[in-house]
Amino acid sequence: MNNQATATLLAECSDQPGIIAKVTQFLSENNGNIVDLEQHVDVSDKHFFMRVEWQLDNFNIARESIENAFNEQVGSVLNMNWRIAFSDVKPRMALFVSQHGHCLFDILSRYQSGEWNVEIPLIISNHTHFQSFADNAGIPFYHLPINADNKQQQEKYQLDLLAEHRVDTVVLARYMQILSPNFIAQYPNQIINIHHSFLPAFPGAKPYHSAHERGVKIIGATSHYVTSELDAGPIIEQDIVRIRHNDNVEDLKRKGQDNEKIVLSRAIRHHLQHEVLVYKNRCIVFD
Amino acid sequence: MNNQATATLLAECSDQPGIIAKVTQFLSENNGNIVDLEQHVDVSDKHFFMRVEWQLDNFNIARESIENAFNEQVGSVLNMNWRIAFSDVKPRMALFVSQHGHCLFDILSRYQSGEWNVEIPLIISNHTHFQSFADNAGIPFYHLPINADNKQQQEKYQLDLLAEHRVDTVVLARYMQILSPNFIAQYPNQIINIHHSFLPAFPGAKPYHSAHERGVKIIGATSHYVTSELDAGPIIEQDIVRIRHNDNVEDLKRKGQDNEKIVLSRAIRHHLQHEVLVYKNRCIVFD
Amino acid sequence: MNNQATATLLAECSDQPGIIAKVTQFLSENNGNIVDLEQHVDVSDKHFFMRVEWQLDNFNIARESIENAFNEQVGSVLNMNWRIAFSDVKPRMALFVSQHGHCLFDILSRYQSGEWNVEIPLIISNHTHFQSFADNAGIPFYHLPINADNKQQQEKYQLDLLAEHRVDTVVLARYMQILSPNFIAQYPNQIINIHHSFLPAFPGAKPYHSAHERGVKIIGATSHYVTSELDAGPIIEQDIVRIRHNDNVEDLKRKGQDNEKIVLSRAIRHHLQHEVLVYKNRCIVFD
Amino acid sequence: MNNQATATLLAECSDQPGIIAKVTQFLSENNGNIVDLEQHVDVSDKHFFMRVEWQLDNFNIARESIENAFNEQVGSVLNMNWRIAFSDVKPRMALFVSQHGHCLFDILSRYQSGEWNVEIPLIISNHTHFQSFADNAGIPFYHLPINADNKQQQEKYQLDLLAEHRVDTVVLARYMQILSPNFIAQYPNQIINIHHSFLPAFPGAKPYHSAHERGVKIIGATSHYVTSELDAGPIIEQDIVRIRHNDNVEDLKRKGQDNEKIVLSRAIRHHLQHEVLVYKNRCIVFD
Repeated sequence: MNNQATATLLAECSDQPGIIAKVTQFLSENNGNIVDLEQHVDVSDKHFFMRVEWQLDNFNIARESIENAFNEQVGSVLNMNWRIAFSDVKPRMALFVSQHGHCLFDILSRYQSGEWNVEIPLIISNHTHFQSFADNAGIPFYHLPINADNKQQQEKYQLDLLAEHRVDTVVLARYMQILSPNFIAQYPNQIINIHHSFLPAFPGAKPYHSAHERGVKIIGATSHYVTSELDAGPIIEQDIVRIRHNDNVEDLKRKGQDNEKIVLSRAIRHHLQHEVLVYKNRCIVFD
Repeated sequence: MNNQATATLLAECSDQPGIIAKVTQFLSENNGNIVDLEQHVDVSDKHFFMRVEWQLDNFNIARESIENAFNEQVGSVLNMNWRIAFSDVKPRMALFVSQHGHCLFDILSRYQSGEWNVEIPLIISNHTHFQSFADNAGIPFYHLPINADNKQQQEKYQLDLLAEHRVDTVVLARYMQILSPNFIAQYPNQIINIHHSFLPAFPGAKPYHSAHERGVKIIGATSHYVTSELDAGPIIEQDIVRIRHNDNVEDLKRKGQDNEKIVLSRAIRHHLQHEVLVYKNRCIVFD
Repeated sequence: MNNQATATLLAECSDQPGIIAKVTQFLSENNGNIVDLEQHVDVSDKHFFMRVEWQLDNFNIARESIENAFNEQVGSVLNMNWRIAFSDVKPRMALFVSQHGHCLFDILSRYQSGEWNVEIPLIISNHTHFQSFADNAGIPFYHLPINADNKQQQEKYQLDLLAEHRVDTVVLARYMQILSPNFIAQYPNQIINIHHSFLPAFPGAKPYHSAHERGVKIIGATSHYVTSELDAGPIIEQDIVRIRHNDNVEDLKRKGQDNEKIVLSRAIRHHLQHEVLVYKNRCIVFD
Repeated sequence: MNNQATATLLAECSDQPGIIAKVTQFLSENNGNIVDLEQHVDVSDKHFFMRVEWQLDNFNIARESIENAFNEQVGSVLNMNWRIAFSDVKPRMALFVSQHGHCLFDILSRYQSGEWNVEIPLIISNHTHFQSFADNAGIPFYHLPINADNKQQQEKYQLDLLAEHRVDTVVLARYMQILSPNFIAQYPNQIINIHHSFLPAFPGAKPYHSAHERGVKIIGATSHYVTSELDAGPIIEQDIVRIRHNDNVEDLKRKGQDNEKIVLSRAIRHHLQHEVLVYKNRCIVFD
């Protein structure tokens, strides 16, 4: 809609009177026109969260000085954790895939239609299934097979590739391999996974089998940031599909995959739009 | 959670730089601790909307002076439409019912469990079906039968009762009678109706019959403010229920009624919490 | 719609060719007009399930002889587990409640409007909160407080009351007490519970607190038959509500309660309509 | 799951006693093992509908004689409309697209992963946007631009292409052109469209603009068979997405497109699995 460049501040600090006034005064005094502002107070934790987006065109502070100015006048005064992103700087996102293509295809179709503000510089896979799709999309594809012996070495190679391609965000689009704590620590709250169940129900392997076995009437999918504890990271997005008694495990997989790809893509978008703040293993999503 | 009294401002004006800064500075200078703030900009209309809730306990302005002070320092300066409500002043809400009890029962059960911040001083009905339920709930019940001849006179009597009971809000809980434009004009954006379809589909009478006839796969319910045009007022809340080919019209009614009562009760809550702003026949709901 | 009395057969057996032909031929030869027929084959278990409803009016077999005739000509031949219910025999259902009224009120409003084919001969509670509501509905109310010392004795008294009132089905409408294995064994697949989470996530106490703590984006409710393992019985119905980061635990309870009462009432209806078959801790629901 | 070939009967006739018995006896006498059977009675219209699927392996009637045998022994006796399809005969489906790719990409990704039992012999478009995607998928692509002058001629060419490619089913994957009554008449209940609203709300052009203007809280998508009356054909599948007041028309399009592609793909699957019967402009979907 609006092609003007904007800046987005994500910030959190202990709750105290006057935070919003201080932030908005900083913007208004410097002629920053606010496009969107959302705040949230966790009352039981007395903690404050905020997202503000403003137009850069007539903003009086030069782009390279904004972070310093904000920190000096607001951030450090309020003892905030904060970050600022610019809408005309595209996040760089790597895709890790295995043998299931539904999430990959969904992401590529959005990428090719320009739906997201993102650059996808590479795809990494432990299989060769999707080489030709990557080729057709013009994205470099790296085949790095994983086994018990080479895992550490391959992860090192993956990290080198991510660094070389200046990757900000990693999306595990049904990658099916468990990343090491060391890998995860390099990208805190920047690795997005899709798990094919309604977490915390059915973590780990074969959730659709477990769902069928338990006889649930609804199946789910969960997209979350990856932490060192399996399937326990902060949840960005979830959704569900109703099933019936006549759906077997194959039906659950089929219906579930439609849900997985939509949930993952919604989570990716929230992340790319700088709408997500993580606090105490929970996501505040300013949607 | 928090029993401290709060004030809530709902405001709208032409979009312009510095609105939030001005409002929050007014609150912060007077020691008003903001509990919740939400804003919205209609970009195509260049119009600004806002809801702010703050604690009254240490606020420096006496309650009876708040409105004047706000208007002088902010409202009139920004040419705002605004109103302020206090959480310890209970809205007074009248119920109009006919022969379907599901919405009435749902409202009464919430009322009796203290779920809402509301007083229900009277129930008005054109039938006697629910007299005993009103009696059990300790709410005065007025039986005002309506026919072609007495409608104008009965509406006058209804308006007298509403005035006498100092009613702010009228809920048509499946009342099934059409109110006159004159009646509606007395309570702008204060009469809440539940229509048993997914508006704008199937306005008017017998929407479940029409839905069955058309073979839709989903039925809906819509709660909206009543305007002089039938079923065309600003929508507060909607929801849907999936149906199958083996659901006949009676099944649609049954499944639909569960939906109607939940949708109406959600809309009532939004209204009672001062979360709704109406602009150009649309509702901004700060939920 | 149709006030004619019907019979409903629920049956299950090992899958084998010709089952439907045999059952429908039995009905058709005896002039039984089928109103509804549903079947399901669990392919991996090679097990067959069926529900057939037919009109009794012109059926050639006298009502008191139907069960014997069916067993002789079909049931025993196919080695079926089966039962037959008649639509003009009202199931008798006891309600167990504690201090939360939302499910009770929802059930009573349906009872009073005649929505279900059921008789509610008594309400049992360990508190006195809802005595007056039971009185208003004309249903005997028994106050049986439970503590560590008297539990066994009170359960005995409860069972006596159920027997005396010829109760078929027990609904735990947020009863919050755990029934003993002995009690449960008296009513296999006849005790319906509502648990306020999306099972198997968050079993046990305080699921809304756990859901908030985990940061899920969706909360659920599950209605299931009670078995001796807590919150692990066969699931009849589930549904969910979306939540946002600004919903605190109280908001989850409030939004969740709307979901709980609808889910429980749907499960009760399936049970009362003889639509549920239990097999290997799963429910086949012919809806 | 089961790779054995099956036959599927879809049938409808006036309701009368003994239909199911007659059909299942025909199958059982000829050693046809029923995999799935569903029936439905429209009580108000006294009309009967049925879907039966049985295994062909040990069926006593040779495939080429099944239709005659069924018609003689059952279909003509009961005055049925019926058709029989074989699971190992792949339906042939043409795609018509314009400039929106989301539905096309979703269909192609399912096609390439083998999710559906279908052959896609050609794609027809009035634009060249998706030529390369068709090439990558190995599907012949025909660019047939449409204007006021050449429409009749191009439709003739389209019909020739469909005939030449022995197409059974046409999917309008956001084709945005209105087909002539003559074209539609060639493929009764075989042309599947996706409309980007919750029909019957917002038929015709620009439904997301209308939805935003009306201020609805939910948007929908509808997949239906095309009839000569615009957006009024029998509905196969619908679903919805919740929106908020801060969603502008572009947001509605984006959220809506995720819904459109899932709804269309579900409808296609029902069609390909021979689960849909059309009666009086309504679809019975045996899902």
